[in-house]
Amino acid sequence: MAIGGTAVTPGSGAVAIEETAQLIAASKVAGTPVYNREGEHLGTIEDVMLDKRSGQVAYAILAFGGFLGIGERYHPLPWSVLEYDLSLGGYRVDLDRDRLEGAPSFAASEAPDWTDRAWGQRVYDYYGAQPYWLQVP
Amino acid sequence: MAIGGTAVTPGSGAVAIEETAQLIAASKVAGTPVYNREGEHLGTIEDVMLDKRSGQVAYAILAFGGFLGIGERYHPLPWSVLEYDLSLGGYRVDLDRDRLEGAPSFAASEAPDWTDRAWGQRVYDYYGAQPYWLQVP
Repeated sequence: MAIGGTAVTPGSGAVAIEETAQLIAASKVAGTPVYNREGEHLGTIEDVMLDKRSGQVAYAILAFGGFLGIGERYHPLPWSVLEYDLSLGGYRVDLDRDRLEGAPSFAASEAPDWTDRAWGQRVYDYYGAQPYWLQVP
Repeated sequence: MAIGGTAVTPGSGAVAIEETAQLIAASKVAGTPVYNREGEHLGTIEDVMLDKRSGQVAYAILAFGGFLGIGERYHPLPWSVLEYDLSLGGYRVDLDRDRLEGAPSFAASEAPDWTDRAWGQRVYDYYGAQPYWLQVP
Protein backbone atom coordinates (compact mmCIF):
# COMPACT_ATOMS: atom_id res chain seq x y z
CA MET A 1 0.00 0.00 0.00
CA ALA A 2 2.57 2.51 1.07
CA ILE A 3 5.05 3.75 -1.49
CA GLY A 4 8.54 3.79 -0.08
CA GLY A 5 11.13 6.45 -0.62
CA THR A 6 14.54 7.01 -2.03
CA ALA A 7 16.89 9.63 -0.75
CA VAL A 8 16.71 13.07 -2.28
CA THR A 9 19.08 13.28 -5.25
CA PRO A 10 20.40 16.84 -5.26
CA GLY A 11 20.50 18.50 -8.64
CA SER A 12 18.41 15.87 -10.39
CA GLY A 13 15.36 18.11 -10.59
CA ALA A 14 14.33 21.72 -10.42
CA VAL A 15 13.09 21.35 -6.89
CA ALA A 16 15.42 20.28 -4.10
CA ILE A 17 12.43 18.91 -2.29
CA GLU A 18 11.48 16.31 -4.85
CA GLU A 19 11.19 13.49 -2.38
CA THR A 20 11.00 12.82 1.34
CA ALA A 21 9.83 9.83 3.34
CA GLN A 22 6.21 11.01 3.12
CA LEU A 23 6.03 13.11 -0.01
CA ILE A 24 7.05 12.86 -3.63
CA ALA A 25 6.98 15.40 -6.44
CA ALA A 26 4.57 14.43 -9.20
CA SER A 27 7.31 15.24 -11.71
CA LYS A 28 9.42 12.53 -10.12
CA VAL A 29 6.70 9.88 -10.34
CA ALA A 30 6.44 10.43 -14.09
CA GLY A 31 9.19 8.53 -15.86
CA THR A 32 9.62 6.00 -13.06
CA PRO A 33 9.89 2.40 -14.30
CA VAL A 34 7.43 -0.26 -13.16
CA TYR A 35 8.35 -3.91 -12.55
CA ASN A 36 6.38 -7.00 -11.68
CA ARG A 37 6.97 -9.28 -8.67
CA GLU A 38 9.75 -11.10 -10.57
CA GLY A 39 11.54 -7.85 -11.31
CA GLU A 40 10.60 -7.92 -14.99
CA HIS A 41 10.26 -4.46 -16.52
CA LEU A 42 6.63 -3.73 -17.47
CA GLY A 43 6.65 -0.10 -18.47
CA THR A 44 6.93 3.45 -17.19
CA ILE A 45 4.65 5.84 -15.37
CA GLU A 46 3.67 8.42 -17.96
CA ASP A 47 1.75 10.85 -15.81
CA VAL A 48 -0.47 11.19 -12.77
CA MET A 49 -4.12 12.21 -13.13
CA LEU A 50 -5.42 14.32 -10.26
CA ASP A 51 -9.01 14.85 -9.20
CA LYS A 52 -9.42 18.63 -9.44
CA ARG A 53 -11.89 18.99 -6.65
CA SER A 54 -10.31 16.82 -3.98
CA GLY A 55 -6.65 16.91 -5.01
CA GLN A 56 -6.58 13.11 -4.85
CA VAL A 57 -4.57 11.03 -7.31
CA ALA A 58 -7.22 9.42 -9.52
CA TYR A 59 -4.85 7.28 -11.61
CA ALA A 60 -1.19 6.72 -12.24
CA ILE A 61 -0.90 6.21 -15.99
CA LEU A 62 1.33 3.27 -16.92
CA ALA A 63 2.67 3.18 -20.49
CA PHE A 64 2.79 -0.52 -21.28
CA GLY A 65 3.33 -2.85 -24.22
CA GLY A 66 4.21 -2.19 -27.82
CA PHE A 67 7.67 -1.93 -29.25
CA LEU A 68 9.69 1.28 -29.58
CA GLY A 69 6.58 3.20 -28.65
CA ILE A 70 4.40 1.57 -31.35
CA GLY A 71 1.35 -0.23 -30.02
CA GLU A 72 1.99 1.13 -26.55
CA ARG A 73 -1.13 1.57 -24.47
CA TYR A 74 -1.95 3.57 -21.36
CA HIS A 75 -3.14 1.64 -18.34
CA PRO A 76 -4.67 3.69 -15.55
CA LEU A 77 -3.60 2.25 -12.20
CA PRO A 78 -4.90 2.97 -8.72
CA TRP A 79 -2.19 4.77 -6.75
CA SER A 80 -2.34 2.08 -4.09
CA VAL A 81 -1.06 -0.72 -6.37
CA LEU A 82 2.30 1.03 -6.78
CA GLU A 83 4.90 0.06 -4.24
CA TYR A 84 8.29 1.68 -4.43
CA ASP A 85 11.22 -0.73 -4.43
CA LEU A 86 14.44 0.96 -3.49
CA SER A 87 16.64 -1.81 -4.90
CA LEU A 88 14.88 -1.71 -8.28
CA GLY A 89 14.75 2.07 -8.38
CA GLY A 90 11.17 1.82 -9.50
CA TYR A 91 7.70 0.70 -8.62
CA ARG A 92 6.83 -2.91 -8.12
CA VAL A 93 3.31 -4.14 -8.83
CA ASP A 94 1.76 -7.51 -8.10
CA LEU A 95 0.74 -8.02 -11.75
CA ASP A 96 2.11 -10.11 -14.56
CA ARG A 97 1.98 -9.21 -18.25
CA ASP A 98 -1.14 -11.28 -18.98
CA ARG A 99 -3.01 -9.67 -16.15
CA LEU A 100 -1.97 -6.24 -17.34
CA GLU A 101 -2.86 -6.97 -20.96
CA GLY A 102 -6.41 -7.74 -19.87
CA ALA A 103 -6.71 -4.57 -17.83
CA PRO A 104 -8.70 -1.49 -18.88
CA SER A 105 -6.46 0.57 -21.14
CA PHE A 106 -6.55 2.98 -24.05
CA ALA A 107 -4.32 3.85 -27.00
CA ALA A 108 -1.99 6.79 -26.59
CA SER A 109 -3.94 8.64 -29.27
CA GLU A 110 -7.35 8.20 -27.69
CA ALA A 111 -8.98 9.63 -24.60
CA PRO A 112 -11.15 7.48 -22.39
CA ASP A 113 -14.37 8.84 -20.99
CA TRP A 114 -13.08 9.81 -17.56
CA THR A 115 -16.48 11.20 -16.68
CA ASP A 116 -17.95 7.70 -16.97
CA ARG A 117 -17.91 6.52 -13.38
CA ALA A 118 -18.75 2.95 -14.43
CA TRP A 119 -15.50 2.93 -16.38
CA GLY A 120 -13.58 4.18 -13.36
CA GLN A 121 -15.28 1.60 -11.20
CA ARG A 122 -14.21 -1.11 -13.65
CA VAL A 123 -10.57 0.02 -13.38
CA TYR A 124 -10.64 -0.07 -9.61
CA ASP A 125 -12.52 -3.37 -9.52
CA TYR A 126 -9.93 -4.92 -11.83
CA TYR A 127 -7.19 -4.14 -9.34
CA GLY A 128 -9.31 -4.84 -6.28
CA ALA A 129 -8.78 -1.33 -4.98
CA GLN A 130 -11.15 1.18 -3.48
CA PRO A 131 -12.09 3.92 -6.00
CA TYR A 132 -10.35 7.24 -5.40
CA TRP A 133 -13.69 9.00 -5.01
CA LEU A 134 -14.40 6.88 -1.93
CA GLN A 135 -10.97 7.08 -0.36
CA VAL A 136 -10.32 8.68 2.98
CA PRO A 137 -6.67 9.72 3.37
CA MET B 1 -12.55 25.47 -3.84
CA ALA B 2 -13.08 23.63 -7.09
CA ILE B 3 -10.55 24.01 -9.87
CA GLY B 4 -12.22 24.62 -13.18
CA GLY B 5 -11.22 23.17 -16.48
CA THR B 6 -10.06 24.08 -19.91
CA ALA B 7 -10.75 21.98 -22.97
CA VAL B 8 -8.27 19.31 -23.88
CA THR B 9 -5.64 20.68 -26.25
CA PRO B 10 -4.74 17.84 -28.61
CA GLY B 11 -1.07 17.42 -29.28
CA SER B 12 0.05 19.74 -26.50
CA GLY B 13 1.25 16.90 -24.30
CA ALA B 14 2.27 13.27 -24.45
CA VAL B 15 -1.06 12.14 -23.09
CA ALA B 16 -4.25 12.93 -24.96
CA ILE B 17 -6.08 12.72 -21.68
CA GLU B 18 -4.29 15.58 -19.99
CA GLU B 19 -7.44 17.29 -18.81
CA THR B 20 -11.15 16.68 -18.41
CA ALA B 21 -13.82 18.40 -16.36
CA GLN B 22 -12.90 16.35 -13.30
CA LEU B 23 -9.28 15.36 -13.79
CA ILE B 24 -6.01 17.03 -14.69
CA ALA B 25 -2.59 15.59 -15.43
CA ALA B 26 -0.01 16.62 -12.85
CA SER B 27 2.34 17.49 -15.71
CA LYS B 28 -0.18 20.06 -16.85
CA VAL B 29 -0.49 21.71 -13.45
CA ALA B 30 3.26 22.31 -13.39
CA GLY B 31 4.11 25.39 -15.43
CA THR B 32 0.66 26.93 -15.03
CA PRO B 33 0.76 30.64 -14.16
CA VAL B 34 -0.86 31.98 -11.00
CA TYR B 35 -2.61 35.33 -10.72
CA ASN B 36 -4.15 37.28 -7.88
CA ARG B 37 -7.73 38.59 -7.70
CA GLU B 38 -6.72 41.64 -9.77
CA GLY B 39 -5.26 39.46 -12.51
CA GLU B 40 -1.68 40.39 -11.59
CA HIS B 41 0.82 37.64 -12.38
CA LEU B 42 2.30 36.21 -9.18
CA GLY B 43 4.31 33.25 -10.33
CA THR B 44 4.10 29.73 -11.69
CA ILE B 45 3.29 26.33 -10.26
CA GLU B 46 6.62 24.52 -10.14
CA ASP B 47 5.49 21.08 -9.09
CA VAL B 48 2.93 19.18 -7.06
CA MET B 49 3.94 17.29 -3.92
CA LEU B 50 1.97 14.10 -3.34
CA ASP B 51 1.49 12.21 -0.10
CA LYS B 52 2.88 8.76 -0.89
CA ARG B 53 0.59 6.85 1.37
CA SER B 54 -2.76 8.43 0.57
CA GLY B 55 -2.11 9.77 -2.94
CA GLN B 56 -3.41 13.15 -1.83
CA VAL B 57 -1.88 16.39 -3.09
CA ALA B 58 0.01 17.76 -0.11
CA TYR B 59 1.12 21.03 -1.69
CA ALA B 60 1.20 22.83 -4.99
CA ILE B 61 4.57 24.54 -5.11
CA LEU B 62 4.38 28.14 -6.32
CA ALA B 63 7.58 29.72 -7.57
CA PHE B 64 7.26 33.35 -6.55
CA GLY B 65 9.31 36.55 -6.37
CA GLY B 66 12.85 37.31 -7.42
CA PHE B 67 13.96 38.55 -10.80
CA LEU B 68 14.99 36.32 -13.71
CA GLY B 69 14.99 33.39 -11.33
CA ILE B 70 17.29 35.06 -8.79
CA GLY B 71 15.81 35.37 -5.34
CA GLU B 72 12.83 33.25 -6.33
CA ARG B 73 11.30 31.30 -3.49
CA TYR B 74 9.02 28.29 -3.32
CA HIS B 75 5.71 28.73 -1.58
CA PRO B 76 3.79 25.56 -0.75
CA LEU B 77 0.08 26.14 -1.29
CA PRO B 78 -2.89 24.02 -0.29
CA TRP B 79 -4.51 22.57 -3.41
CA SER B 80 -7.81 24.14 -2.41
CA VAL B 81 -6.59 27.76 -2.76
CA LEU B 82 -6.04 27.31 -6.50
CA GLU B 83 -8.99 28.16 -8.66
CA TYR B 84 -8.68 27.76 -12.38
CA ASP B 85 -9.67 30.79 -14.44
CA LEU B 86 -10.39 29.93 -18.03
CA SER B 87 -10.09 33.54 -19.25
CA LEU B 88 -6.68 33.96 -17.61
CA GLY B 89 -5.44 30.53 -18.65
CA GLY B 90 -4.09 30.05 -15.17
CA TYR B 91 -4.92 29.76 -11.51
CA ARG B 92 -6.38 32.61 -9.57
CA VAL B 93 -5.70 32.92 -5.85
CA ASP B 94 -7.23 35.26 -3.35
CA LEU B 95 -3.82 36.55 -2.21
CA ASP B 96 -1.88 39.71 -2.86
CA ARG B 97 1.91 40.02 -3.04
CA ASP B 98 2.31 41.19 0.57
CA ARG B 99 0.27 38.30 1.86
CA LEU B 100 2.29 35.87 -0.21
CA GLU B 101 5.62 37.40 0.85
CA GLY B 102 4.72 36.72 4.48
CA ALA B 103 3.74 33.12 3.77
CA PRO B 104 5.85 30.08 4.68
CA SER B 105 8.38 29.57 1.91
CA PHE B 106 11.85 28.28 1.22
CA ALA B 107 14.69 29.09 -1.17
CA ALA B 108 14.93 26.98 -4.32
CA SER B 109 18.22 25.58 -3.04
CA GLU B 110 16.93 24.47 0.33
CA ALA B 111 14.60 21.72 1.46
CA PRO B 112 12.08 22.36 4.22
CA ASP B 113 11.47 19.75 6.85
CA TRP B 114 8.36 18.17 5.34
CA THR B 115 8.27 15.64 8.13
CA ASP B 116 7.65 18.45 10.61
CA ARG B 117 3.90 18.40 10.96
CA ALA B 118 3.92 21.70 12.86
CA TRP B 119 5.46 23.32 9.78
CA GLY B 120 2.76 21.79 7.58
CA GLN B 121 0.12 22.96 10.00
CA ARG B 122 1.55 26.48 9.81
CA VAL B 123 1.27 26.45 6.01
CA TYR B 124 -2.35 25.34 6.11
CA ASP B 125 -3.22 27.74 8.93
CA TYR B 126 -1.73 30.62 6.94
CA TYR B 127 -4.16 29.96 4.11
CA GLY B 128 -7.07 29.01 6.36
CA ALA B 129 -7.30 25.59 4.78
CA GLN B 130 -7.76 22.15 6.25
CA PRO B 131 -4.46 20.18 6.27
CA TYR B 132 -4.21 17.51 3.57
CA TRP B 133 -3.75 14.80 6.19
CA LEU B 134 -7.23 15.56 7.54
CA GLN B 135 -9.01 15.91 4.21
CA VAL B 136 -11.78 13.61 3.13
CA PRO B 137 -12.17 13.59 -0.66
